[in-house]
Amino acid sequence: MAKTATPAENAQLKDIISHAKEYGFVYPSSEIYDGLQAVYDYGAYGVELKNNLKRLWWETMTRVQDNIVGIDAAIFMHPTTWKASGHVDSFNDPMIDNKDSKKRYRADVLVEEHAAVFERAGDIERANELTGALARLLEAEDLAGVRDLIINEDIKCPISGTSNWTDVRQFNLMFSTQVGSVAEDASTIFLRPETAQGIFVNFLNVQKTARMKVPFGIAQIGKAFRNEIVARQFIFRMREFEQMEMQFFVRPGTELEWYQKWAETRMKWHLALGTTAEKLRKHDHEKLAHYANAAMDIEYDFPFGFKEVEGIHSRTDFDLKSHQEFSKKKQQYFDPEVNKNYIPYVIETSIGADRLFLMTLCNAYTEEKTEEKSRTYLKFHPAIAPVKAAILPITKKDGLPDKAKEIVDLLKYDFNIIYEEAASIGKRYARQDLIGTPFCIAVDHQTLEDNTVTIRHRDTTEQERVPISELHGRIAEATSFRRVFEKL
Amino acid sequence: MAKTATPAENAQLKDIISHAKEYGFVYPSSEIYDGLQAVYDYGAYGVELKNNLKRLWWETMTRVQDNIVGIDAAIFMHPTTWKASGHVDSFNDPMIDNKDSKKRYRADVLVEEHAAVFERAGDIERANELTGALARLLEAEDLAGVRDLIINEDIKCPISGTSNWTDVRQFNLMFSTQVGSVAEDASTIFLRPETAQGIFVNFLNVQKTARMKVPFGIAQIGKAFRNEIVARQFIFRMREFEQMEMQFFVRPGTELEWYQKWAETRMKWHLALGTTAEKLRKHDHEKLAHYANAAMDIEYDFPFGFKEVEGIHSRTDFDLKSHQEFSKKKQQYFDPEVNKNYIPYVIETSIGADRLFLMTLCNAYTEEKTEEKSRTYLKFHPAIAPVKAAILPITKKDGLPDKAKEIVDLLKYDFNIIYEEAASIGKRYARQDLIGTPFCIAVDHQTLEDNTVTIRHRDTTEQERVPISELHGRIAEATSFRRVFEKL
Repeated sequence: MAKTATPAENAQLKDIISHAKEYGFVYPSSEIYDGLQAVYDYGAYGVELKNNLKRLWWETMTRVQDNIVGIDAAIFMHPTTWKASGHVDSFNDPMIDNKDSKKRYRADVLVEEHAAVFERAGDIERANELTGALARLLEAEDLAGVRDLIINEDIKCPISGTSNWTDVRQFNLMFSTQVGSVAEDASTIFLRPETAQGIFVNFLNVQKTARMKVPFGIAQIGKAFRNEIVARQFIFRMREFEQMEMQFFVRPGTELEWYQKWAETRMKWHLALGTTAEKLRKHDHEKLAHYANAAMDIEYDFPFGFKEVEGIHSRTDFDLKSHQEFSKKKQQYFDPEVNKNYIPYVIETSIGADRLFLMTLCNAYTEEKTEEKSRTYLKFHPAIAPVKAAILPITKKDGLPDKAKEIVDLLKYDFNIIYEEAASIGKRYARQDLIGTPFCIAVDHQTLEDNTVTIRHRDTTEQERVPISELHGRIAEATSFRRVFEKL
Repeated sequence: MAKTATPAENAQLKDIISHAKEYGFVYPSSEIYDGLQAVYDYGAYGVELKNNLKRLWWETMTRVQDNIVGIDAAIFMHPTTWKASGHVDSFNDPMIDNKDSKKRYRADVLVEEHAAVFERAGDIERANELTGALARLLEAEDLAGVRDLIINEDIKCPISGTSNWTDVRQFNLMFSTQVGSVAEDASTIFLRPETAQGIFVNFLNVQKTARMKVPFGIAQIGKAFRNEIVARQFIFRMREFEQMEMQFFVRPGTELEWYQKWAETRMKWHLALGTTAEKLRKHDHEKLAHYANAAMDIEYDFPFGFKEVEGIHSRTDFDLKSHQEFSKKKQQYFDPEVNKNYIPYVIETSIGADRLFLMTLCNAYTEEKTEEKSRTYLKFHPAIAPVKAAILPITKKDGLPDKAKEIVDLLKYDFNIIYEEAASIGKRYARQDLIGTPFCIAVDHQTLEDNTVTIRHRDTTEQERVPISELHGRIAEATSFRRVFEKL
């Protein structure tokens, strides 16, 4: 059973959400129209952080590895894709309506919330009994049984207070739309609920045109959409989200070895980015999806508990085989080393860009309290920090702004730089801490004399005097993706 | 009237489409299911080219300019957004059905194609008469008049051959979908038909959180969707496409000055990327959209004629004013320099990432024929070429592959590199020409002795001997975005 967040943990999430909004990381979507549930926009610093994370992932996959290339498949796909993948038939949530309030709920969530009441009251046994019964019914696809459980437990609608429930029905989570004109040639298509299928249907196109040899991988970053009924926890579960997926095609029989390798590589990547080791854990799936023969999650200890950030799945040949069946087109690879045709097996690494963003933000958010003062800062790894350096003349007079702007021009083509001249230098340092800028560069009267500046370091607040001529090299060194690559 | 493509021009487009598919740039979407009309996927080299173009645009806007920041707003927006923007009421195409064939057509396209028949027959006057009449009727929103024109001209359905037409009706081009469960709390939302509104609704969020002062800009890259009935010309007009838009907020009265400035800056950018000057032209809009007080396109001479690649529009305060009205929230800026509150005016630069991609591909596609041999290559600017260098040992023996792989490791963290050891060196050069790799680096026996290699240049096929220690610097210099930035 999922850990229930304590009030302190919820307060921490609340602080992070406010911080994200106030300092230009994440805003509720269409906020002037009071927002759109479970949809968010990335602001000026948020988009830079997200782009850095995406580019780092992309280069980790396609450059550092010798045998992985990328693609960018469209969100719209031929509808048969989702027949073949199983999404049309089984990408459902069990829903139930209360006839009095006319409100719709996820039936499984109703039971889970009911069980949580017992858990909070200390009756763990009863809670486990209930969630166990629910799991068995869902496993058996016994929707009538789920309804009976709700009735027998006398679970009530929180709005109407009655237990006047409809049947439990499956509700498909894919968004659909009509393509073409509204005449009879229009057809229903779906917004992809995952990016993986865009890779599978292009398996042979990529293998042939980029002349790849098994084992090889295809990486992709793109939007996916799920009509989540219960969408919450800020950007953790959104209706529109971005996935970064890599499908690695291997010779059948070698898949579990590759599965282990990728699980390790991905964990190393998160650690290389500075994510706190104690807040990361691996979680093996006990119950495997129909397409998998091994699966695990990398989980992070969010303010609302340990939750999946990335999944590593051994998907067998399920997807390619199914596309072969539905398309009547062979999805095989001729392996010259074993002189055989086969459908490759697939290891998938799948991470939500938004979840990675949230993990990065939570992990960076630091409140320091000493007797004299308190300080909040975001301790992002310099390679992904939205702004690399702030150039700050200590006064607006004596030609210091001009000198500072020379430094901006020296750096701005290669790094995201901020120039600020208003407010006291202390206030400007504090402001840069709040958006996670690793280096503040102060330009003072001495600068005019000897071409040196003060670098103030975000995490330690320590200051050091360095020549202007060294700035470019030092920032390049600290912010280079190589610093992450070398730890893999 | 749009120029009609000659057979030679169509042949050229066909060559480019085949090339794009065969060499991993663009595939039809879901091709194993026979594709989805007007939707395409980017392959291994296509995605690298597109990502380079997107990143170059992004850095041009947000880094080189001191007063522009980015955002990434969601595709899903509050439905009132599209009321305020005018898309719900007026983002329509006039459609007509043939009652016998049951086929639907764009009424204006039927008339244009009819006029084109006269044009091809040499009767330019008659053709102009027809298109003039059509323009006047559309301007007056006289749909009955458009139908009368079709009937009077005896325009027939190409399928049924009859002129048994329905009325002309407006068809909205936005894709819609249902969000939430199908109960009564579900609501219809749209897939955004343009990214611009994501910027406008976030105007104050960005201005405040990134502490921007007018004049300033907000840049965004993202997907947009239009249910085009007549979608064609490869990736030029797709139902799912990607926009790169920048909205620049200025003090009212200064907008035309900024409009000129941005028009010039954007033209310089295209030229800096190596686009042939004679194939680019500016086209001022004669008829302005309801929200604009000046507008122009940058057009490129595609194989199917001069067509819009980028638009620069002076949008006045139309959008912010409209959002203020619909949201009842003030969309004003206090300008301390003039001590006044106002709704800023907006200059927009809007470019389709897919169109820019197609222009770049068409412009790079080069067929060279001499008496001895013919050669096809893609002469991409090195800064945006999908692969920067290929490392090629001239034989698979004598330790040359190991030496070559040392060079790969030297370069791969910073550049997209290919290693190839199969086939003759000539064939491998030809292959790299076809994907536009600017530098081929051959490793031979001399390399083992003196640590030098041969660089073979794509455009000239000239070769030169250089020390391995110079490779990183030379590639960095040639492929740096600075080479573009410095020409702006």
